[in-house]
Amino acid sequence: MENLVSMKDLSVEQITAILKRAEDFRDGATSTLKNNYTMANLFFEPSTRTKMSFEMAERKLQLNVLPFDSGFSSTLKGETLYDTVKVLEAIGIDALVIRHEQNNFFEELIGKTKVAIINGGDGTGNHPTQSLLDIFTIWEEFGTLQDKVITIVGDIAHSRVARSNADALSRLGAKVQLVCPTEWQGEFECLQDFDEVIESSDVMMMLRVQHERHKENGIFSKEDYHQAFGLTVERERKMKDGAIIMHPAPFNRDVEIASELVECDRSRIMKQMENGVYVRMAITETILKGRE
Amino acid sequence: MENLVSMKDLSVEQITAILKRAEDFRDGATSTLKNNYTMANLFFEPSTRTKMSFEMAERKLQLNVLPFDSGFSSTLKGETLYDTVKVLEAIGIDALVIRHEQNNFFEELIGKTKVAIINGGDGTGNHPTQSLLDIFTIWEEFGTLQDKVITIVGDIAHSRVARSNADALSRLGAKVQLVCPTEWQGEFECLQDFDEVIESSDVMMMLRVQHERHKENGIFSKEDYHQAFGLTVERERKMKDGAIIMHPAPFNRDVEIASELVECDRSRIMKQMENGVYVRMAITETILKGRE
Amino acid sequence: MENLVSMKDLSVEQITAILKRAEDFRDGATSTLKNNYTMANLFFEPSTRTKMSFEMAERKLQLNVLPFDSGFSSTLKGETLYDTVKVLEAIGIDALVIRHEQNNFFEELIGKTKVAIINGGDGTGNHPTQSLLDIFTIWEEFGTLQDKVITIVGDIAHSRVARSNADALSRLGAKVQLVCPTEWQGEFECLQDFDEVIESSDVMMMLRVQHERHKENGIFSKEDYHQAFGLTVERERKMKDGAIIMHPAPFNRDVEIASELVECDRSRIMKQMENGVYVRMAITETILKGRE
Repeated sequence: MENLVSMKDLSVEQITAILKRAEDFRDGATSTLKNNYTMANLFFEPSTRTKMSFEMAERKLQLNVLPFDSGFSSTLKGETLYDTVKVLEAIGIDALVIRHEQNNFFEELIGKTKVAIINGGDGTGNHPTQSLLDIFTIWEEFGTLQDKVITIVGDIAHSRVARSNADALSRLGAKVQLVCPTEWQGEFECLQDFDEVIESSDVMMMLRVQHERHKENGIFSKEDYHQAFGLTVERERKMKDGAIIMHPAPFNRDVEIASELVECDRSRIMKQMENGVYVRMAITETILKGRE
Repeated sequence: MENLVSMKDLSVEQITAILKRAEDFRDGATSTLKNNYTMANLFFEPSTRTKMSFEMAERKLQLNVLPFDSGFSSTLKGETLYDTVKVLEAIGIDALVIRHEQNNFFEELIGKTKVAIINGGDGTGNHPTQSLLDIFTIWEEFGTLQDKVITIVGDIAHSRVARSNADALSRLGAKVQLVCPTEWQGEFECLQDFDEVIESSDVMMMLRVQHERHKENGIFSKEDYHQAFGLTVERERKMKDGAIIMHPAPFNRDVEIASELVECDRSRIMKQMENGVYVRMAITETILKGRE
Repeated sequence: MENLVSMKDLSVEQITAILKRAEDFRDGATSTLKNNYTMANLFFEPSTRTKMSFEMAERKLQLNVLPFDSGFSSTLKGETLYDTVKVLEAIGIDALVIRHEQNNFFEELIGKTKVAIINGGDGTGNHPTQSLLDIFTIWEEFGTLQDKVITIVGDIAHSRVARSNADALSRLGAKVQLVCPTEWQGEFECLQDFDEVIESSDVMMMLRVQHERHKENGIFSKEDYHQAFGLTVERERKMKDGAIIMHPAPFNRDVEIASELVECDRSRIMKQMENGVYVRMAITETILKGRE
């Protein structure tokens, strides 16, 4: 694995290897990298958790991390992403985590730079490290994904998570169903009646209502959305024994999820963030190991 | 000591222990922490010196420090401080330094997170690490605070320093008097005649005129303020032998203090900044040691 | 060498020593510094490559680097550069790299602070580390600068590179000629006919058209500039055997240089960036060694 840009590039075997290595890191394993690598995290969109999670993972792997301030870089002078990456290659960077608003930004990079590229989220496209941490969290919970019923609820069309997850979860044997308002289903097939699927779901994966992406979403008030597509306290009570709640965060309390449920017994939301560090350690180590 | 949010929480014994440990660090002591801790500095308001001082202290203690860019974080997406801190807890952060414009921001955090919280300044409320470095600087100078006359001059009502300091200095035996325009005294009792107290003061603690906080302060021109409440060259000449000048900085030259006095013999302004590193090392080490 | 603010301060011997030490670093040498130094990079203007290059150099020298966010510092509260530097001195910083829009910003610092100052670019004035990496790249290519014909093309009047380079290159024995539109020649003597000098040049040093500095440059369309003063594919074909192309970057593709030429065989543009790290290591190590 030279880069990680999309879940589509990963075989089931590769995904399984990452899950096992993430489990090692969770259980206290340390880096087996032989060389002293240098990375940078190029985030052209705001993010706390993905960026901080990578920063933590990189430090736990004892890598050098160069600070990069996108709001203060030469991209302000009109430099392309390609030219920025070539500069960082020349300076001696080994790997970059990039988050960028442009879908498939990595297409202009892969094969044209020696720097390893890890996609930290592209537009409404891919977010493979989020997918892998979601998968790890389910796998850790149930020991398998085979036949697990996973319900993804929310803004499917605009969600990186939904796109990255739906296919990979299916390939691992899970049964994925999508629930969303018709306005937000995009190219996907979605169910519109959330209540119908509550009792049969093993995993309830709630998505963020992305206010900042579709400003025209006056189609729902927060209260209306919560009643129709939010995980309310009433809906949580109907979930089956052992079923869990997930959310990629940041979450809108009392919009897609009732505030009381964020830290409830079923919730794996904080666990997902913890797992993100282990999964990102596994991915980064795997990619850098390929350079040794 | 699990957190440090207000001087009120510290006993005289705890303050004394911090002063002694800061003295050790000044004299070249190194960290006695056994584990490898990770911190982050969450500054939601501009600050050079407090942030840089903590960054230096943390590195001298050989801690991992994750970069946090408040202008680029998920708080932009409407995330609450509580949720941001819970994310950082999940990611594995041990302690946070937080500066926030909201008074008592820490009340929604203490007792609800495993992350240790160090208050780096809250609104017009507390700034305990500044208080402790002020106290250390006086203690280093005179060997005691007992019976020292400390005159705090300036915008008392809006100053974190005045609030944090006044009570703690008194508990340590110092005689604190406040001087300020009537408009700025807030809930405090203040003297209005600066000249009356010059000769009797051991410590002249000048406060910053906070232009950015009260824009309506057309009540004084800079020159008028300097004449009435600034430390002028004439006033400095009347100070008694061995008396010192302090200022938390950043200072407005020729407003609260004459430009020539910033680096004069009596000035401990640069010394305060140096001491800030030792004091913050002592505080951070003490808090992290409580987790071992 | 206590500071590096201008090429004018460096003798030919000092330049040669830096070139040789940079070559050592290129060949894998490591730092010979005995103490544990702390630096910070104060960039008050956007820059990716200079800042990232220094960050890399500092880490390769195993220095501590404190993060400094100019957009978030006390300079926002009106603090002068001098006062900021004095604070950083008090906090314990050993050396600062500073980029600032004000020409000769360093004049208010040198001799007044114990912090070593490395000029990372001042206004339209100096950019000595860029000059040194340019010189290193030519020296590495030809083994000498003696009698090499170096043609600098572009916005001479507004270019830090041109000013820093022209004098130093001449002192090292090179023959420097400047080519630019009459509007942009400033105090320099320039040629206006680019084609006249193509065949005789050993080094074609193209400068960035600084759109962000002179907004009134509607005097040329991009296409017109490219035809008159850009390095086109046709001009490249006329260059002599072994001649090389340089550019300090970021470059405007198809303005000062044809896009196809950026990574062509003659281009040393990426090499310059790589060399920047070695040269900055040499400079920083030399300056810090002077403190031991």
